[in-house]
Amino acid sequence: MIRKIYDEELVNGQCYQNLRYLCKNIGPRLSGSPNAQKAVEWGKKLMESYGFDHVFLQQVTVPHWVRGAKERGEIVDGDNRIPVAIAALGMSVATPATGLTADVIEVHSLKELDTLGEAAIKGKIVFFNRPFDPRFIETLRAYGTAGDQRNAGPAAAAKYGAVAVIVRSLTESIDNYPHTGATRYDKNSVEIPAAAISTIAANQLSALLKQKGNIKFYFKQNCRMLPDTTSYNVVAELTGTENPNKFITVGGHLDSWDLAEGAHDDGTGVMQSLEVLRILKSMGYRAKNTIRAVFFINEENGDRGGDKYAELAAKNKEDHIAAIETDLGGFTPRGFGFDGLSPTVLKKLRESWGDLLAPYGSGEFLAGGGGSDIGPLKEKTPGVVLIGYLPDSQRYFDIHHSPNDVFENVNKRELELGAASMAALIYLIDQHGFN
Amino acid sequence: MIRKIYDEELVNGQCYQNLRYLCKNIGPRLSGSPNAQKAVEWGKKLMESYGFDHVFLQQVTVPHWVRGAKERGEIVDGDNRIPVAIAALGMSVATPATGLTADVIEVHSLKELDTLGEAAIKGKIVFFNRPFDPRFIETLRAYGTAGDQRNAGPAAAAKYGAVAVIVRSLTESIDNYPHTGATRYDKNSVEIPAAAISTIAANQLSALLKQKGNIKFYFKQNCRMLPDTTSYNVVAELTGTENPNKFITVGGHLDSWDLAEGAHDDGTGVMQSLEVLRILKSMGYRAKNTIRAVFFINEENGDRGGDKYAELAAKNKEDHIAAIETDLGGFTPRGFGFDGLSPTVLKKLRESWGDLLAPYGSGEFLAGGGGSDIGPLKEKTPGVVLIGYLPDSQRYFDIHHSPNDVFENVNKRELELGAASMAALIYLIDQHGFN
Repeated sequence: MIRKIYDEELVNGQCYQNLRYLCKNIGPRLSGSPNAQKAVEWGKKLMESYGFDHVFLQQVTVPHWVRGAKERGEIVDGDNRIPVAIAALGMSVATPATGLTADVIEVHSLKELDTLGEAAIKGKIVFFNRPFDPRFIETLRAYGTAGDQRNAGPAAAAKYGAVAVIVRSLTESIDNYPHTGATRYDKNSVEIPAAAISTIAANQLSALLKQKGNIKFYFKQNCRMLPDTTSYNVVAELTGTENPNKFITVGGHLDSWDLAEGAHDDGTGVMQSLEVLRILKSMGYRAKNTIRAVFFINEENGDRGGDKYAELAAKNKEDHIAAIETDLGGFTPRGFGFDGLSPTVLKKLRESWGDLLAPYGSGEFLAGGGGSDIGPLKEKTPGVVLIGYLPDSQRYFDIHHSPNDVFENVNKRELELGAASMAALIYLIDQHGFN
Repeated sequence: MIRKIYDEELVNGQCYQNLRYLCKNIGPRLSGSPNAQKAVEWGKKLMESYGFDHVFLQQVTVPHWVRGAKERGEIVDGDNRIPVAIAALGMSVATPATGLTADVIEVHSLKELDTLGEAAIKGKIVFFNRPFDPRFIETLRAYGTAGDQRNAGPAAAAKYGAVAVIVRSLTESIDNYPHTGATRYDKNSVEIPAAAISTIAANQLSALLKQKGNIKFYFKQNCRMLPDTTSYNVVAELTGTENPNKFITVGGHLDSWDLAEGAHDDGTGVMQSLEVLRILKSMGYRAKNTIRAVFFINEENGDRGGDKYAELAAKNKEDHIAAIETDLGGFTPRGFGFDGLSPTVLKKLRESWGDLLAPYGSGEFLAGGGGSDIGPLKEKTPGVVLIGYLPDSQRYFDIHHSPNDVFENVNKRELELGAASMAALIYLIDQHGFN
C-alpha cells in the first residue's frame, strides 16, 4: 500500500501544478489582503473539484496589517548615504512620514540591552546583529535561537528609550534580501518602528560601526494596522467509514508574507495537505477515521486560524487522533517529529513505521513535534498526537520570508515525496492507531 | 571528535569559496581543453597552499573531443521548421557540414530496434524517447535504467542503417536544456552522429509524430575527435603516522562537460575531497594511515584518470584500505553505500558509525557503492572497500550535464555537510578499520 501511495504521487501528482497556480495566479496573500481572500475562494473551489466528501470554511477574525509603500533605508556615514535593503517587520508601526534618522547602537542579545541601559540606548536605533549559529545541523534551531531579536527585540529596546530597531535578517545566507516576519509589541512599552535589514547590509553597517564608531541610520516605512477583518480556514474531508467523529488532520497555512509568492512558506504545505486527500481518494482508499486537509489562515501574524480550528474542534466535541503540520518548506523528506507519545511507543513506531518509510527517505521519527497551527489542539482536544513533517532544513532560511520565496525554488519531486510520505503516515495511523 | 569535525566545517568551511573559483574563474573543463589544463594547475597550487604533506600529479593520456560550433536542430513538419534545443552527445561524430535531414522514427528501447529491423530504420533518424521512470525514489536508478539509450543507442541504431540518433535528455525535469553525456560507438558498426534533445522538444516531436506520422528532423553539428593529449590526476596526501603505505582515498573528478561550469558534476566532489584533508589538518589530526584527496581527470568521456590511479596503486604496491567517491552532486547528505563488506560487518557499522552520523543526516549505510573513478581499484588493489557518498538525489538530474549546472545551484551548507560527513567517516575508518 505504501509503495502504491508513492507510485500514485510520483506518476500522477498534482500538487506541483496546484502550487504553480497559487504562486503565479494569486501570489502574496497576507491575512486581510484581497489576495488572501482570493486564495480562500480558489482553495475551496479546488477542494470541491476533487469531489471530497465535505468541503467547508471556518470563519476567522484576522488582523489586517499592511506594508504600504516600499521602505527606504540608508546607512548615514557623515555625508555619505548608502542605500540598503530593508523591509518593515510585520505588525510594526510606521516611521514619521519623512523618515527617521538616529545614531546606531549594535547589540547581539536582548540581555545586552539590560547591561547597556537607558544611558546608552535612549534616542538611538538599536541594531540587533547576532547571526545564525552555523553549527546547528537543523537550521530551524538556528532560527529558534536567533529569533528573539526579531520577535521581542523591538519591545525590549523601546523600554530603554530606543527610537527604532533594525534586525539582521534571520538567515545564514549572506545575500541582499530583507527577511521580514512578525514582531510583538509589549502592551507596557511604546511601539517603535522596526525593520529587517539584509545580511549583506548588516555586515556593512557593523563593519562601519567598528571602523568609525559614530554611524547613523535612516529609514522610512509607512506600514500600519487596519481594523480586524474576516477570513477563513478552508477544510476538506474524507469521511471515516467506521469512526466519522474521529479525525486525522493534515494542514499548512494559506496566508503568506507579502514580499513574495509564499512558495515554500507555506504554499507547499497547503498543496501537500490537499494532495494527501487526493492520493487516498484516487486510490479508492476507504479510511476508517475522517481525514481532513486544512488550509489554516493567519499563521504568519496572529495564529488565529489555528486557534479557531482548535476552538471549534472542542466545541463540536471532535475526537482528534492526530494532526500533522507541514510548514517547514517543500524540501526532500527526512521524517516526522512526534509530540504526545511515550518514549516506548515512539521507539516502537520508529522500528515499525520508521523502517517502512526509510526506503522513501522519511524514516526519521524524532521526539517533539507540532507547529503553530496545530499547537492549540493540544489543550483543546486532549490526547491528540501532534506531528511535525520534517523536510530537509538546509535551504529553508535562505528564502524564508524574503522576496526569494518563489515557485522556481520548489523542486517537483521533493514536493511530491513529502505529500506521499504524509499520505503514507496517515494511512498507517488510520489503520493501526498508535498502540 | 565528530562534532568537532562538523563545527570546523560549518564555521570555517572553504569548499564553497573554492568551488566558486573553479566555476567562475575557470569554468567548463572537458578533458583535453585549455580549461582542463588550467584546472589541473590551479588544483595543484590550491592543494599546495594548504601545506599538505605531499602534492603530486599523475600523468594520464586522455581523449580530446571538441564540440565545435553550437549545434542547430529543427523539427521539420512540411514547410514548418521548429528550432529546438539540442547538444551533440560526447564522442559523437559530426553531421555533414550542411547538416542532415531525415524521417524520424520514435523508439523506446534498444530491443525495439531489433523488432523493427532494417526495413523500418534504414535511412532514418532514430529518436530514443523513453522517459525517466518517476517511481524510483533514487533518481540515479531512473538514470541507470534510461541511460542505455544514450550510451549504446547510437551504436545499436547504426547496425540497422540509421543515419543519425537523437536521444531524449536523461532527466525527469521538463525543461528546455539539452543534457549531453558520452555515447560509445561499436567498433563493428558505422559511427553516426548523435545528439541529446531537450525534454520539452522531445515531447513536442513525439506529439507531432503521433498526430501526423510523417515528420523529419534536421540537425547540424561539427564536433570531432582530436588526437589524444596529456593531462593529470591531482593528488594531495596527509601522510600516515603509523602506516604510511596504507591509504584511504577520497576523490571526485576535475573534468566536466563543456556546456556549463560543472558545479555539481563534479566541482562539488573535488572541492569536498580537498576539504576533507583541510578539515583534518586544521584540527591537527594525526592520521594513522595516509589520507589522500584525488582530483581524477577524464571521468566524463573515458575514465582514464581512474584507470591510471588504480594502475599506479598496483604498480607502487600501495595497500588501499578504502576509497570514497563523491560524484552525485553537492546536495544534502543521506549516507554512504559500501562495496566490499560482508552483510554482517555492514550491519555492525550501520549500528555503530551509522548511529553516530545519523544526527548529522548521514546515517544511511547501504550495501553497494563505489563510482567510476574508484571502481578500477577493486581489481587492482584487492581488499579495498569502495564507498559511494550518497547525497540526496532528487535535484541532481535536473541539472546534470546541462547548461544549468552552475555554481548558483549549489547550497553552501549542503556542500559543507557533505565534506564533513566524509571527513567523519574517514576519521572512523582511520581509527578503527572495518573489523
